Amino acid sequence: MRNDQTDDVVSNDQTDDVVSHGPFIEAAIGEARKGLASGGIPIGSVLVIDGEIVGRGHNKRVQQGSSVLHAEMDCLENAGRLSASDYSRSTLYSTLSPCDMCTGAALLYKIPRVVVGENKTFQGPQRYMQERGVEVTILDNAECVAMMEDFIQARPELWNEDIGE
Amino acid sequence: MRNDQTDDVVSNDQTDDVVSHGPFIEAAIGEARKGLASGGIPIGSVLVIDGEIVGRGHNKRVQQGSSVLHAEMDCLENAGRLSASDYSRSTLYSTLSPCDMCTGAALLYKIPRVVVGENKTFQGPQRYMQERGVEVTILDNAECVAMMEDFIQARPELWNEDIGE
Repeated sequence: MRNDQTDDVVSNDQTDDVVSHGPFIEAAIGEARKGLASGGIPIGSVLVIDGEIVGRGHNKRVQQGSSVLHAEMDCLENAGRLSASDYSRSTLYSTLSPCDMCTGAALLYKIPRVVVGENKTFQGPQRYMQERGVEVTILDNAECVAMMEDFIQARPELWNEDIGE
Repeated sequence: MRNDQTDDVVSNDQTDDVVSHGPFIEAAIGEARKGLASGGIPIGSVLVIDGEIVGRGHNKRVQQGSSVLHAEMDCLENAGRLSASDYSRSTLYSTLSPCDMCTGAALLYKIPRVVVGENKTFQGPQRYMQERGVEVTILDNAECVAMMEDFIQARPELWNEDIGE
């Protein structure tokens, strides 16, 4: 972990009910499983606008030899060209704490809410994202943690490549 | 411009000769021209390692309907899966000041040097990039400024979409 945040759980979300995130983080987990099943890194993401999933994606480093298609990036790409108005009502779900690149993408499009499955196995610049006005919610989801722990143990070199280590 | 930096030129590069950047920024400008010629946004980028261009790219919003392939992202994607050792010796050139997303990508891969054609028409989070240890050089290139000024005047709605406005 490259960032200087040592807190395990960071959240400035005081309003949402964790339960309401259930179907969306499950959809992101489904994407992560799909990625794992196709030989890839098990991280998934969905973009939600007005209660509907408008984009889904998973890490494509292995499957497409991609250095930029992290799960969140693949999700945003699959969501297509959206307007600033669309992004302003969106929530980005990811099974794992977004890295610098994916955090930057959320900031570029002024996505107001990011919901994270877990930040135990990796933690991106959450504090910075909050300072820039994003509402960050950490779900501390056990399945997300287990998927990444298993993967990092099995393929440490691939995982390190994915986070630039 | 969404960031709170008002300075026109930011650089913590005290060592490089501007002239040495010439062939690489010219290659990035060539990519920008190629993007414009194919109906796209005229921003180009190259990645240089040990004096050799290892990746080239330009903005693909129009050409591929892409929300993530800014010039720098397209360049990193085209450079392929590189090792941390490769990135540690790299310099990322872009005709325009990198946005939050592209800055984040440079940070993810710990690219130590970013050379920017111009930051007059748009300025990303340069100060933050510097605070995170990246050496940032602004070339203040007149052709880069002119390309963007012409484009922004001709297609303001497309430009705004590209920067999340």
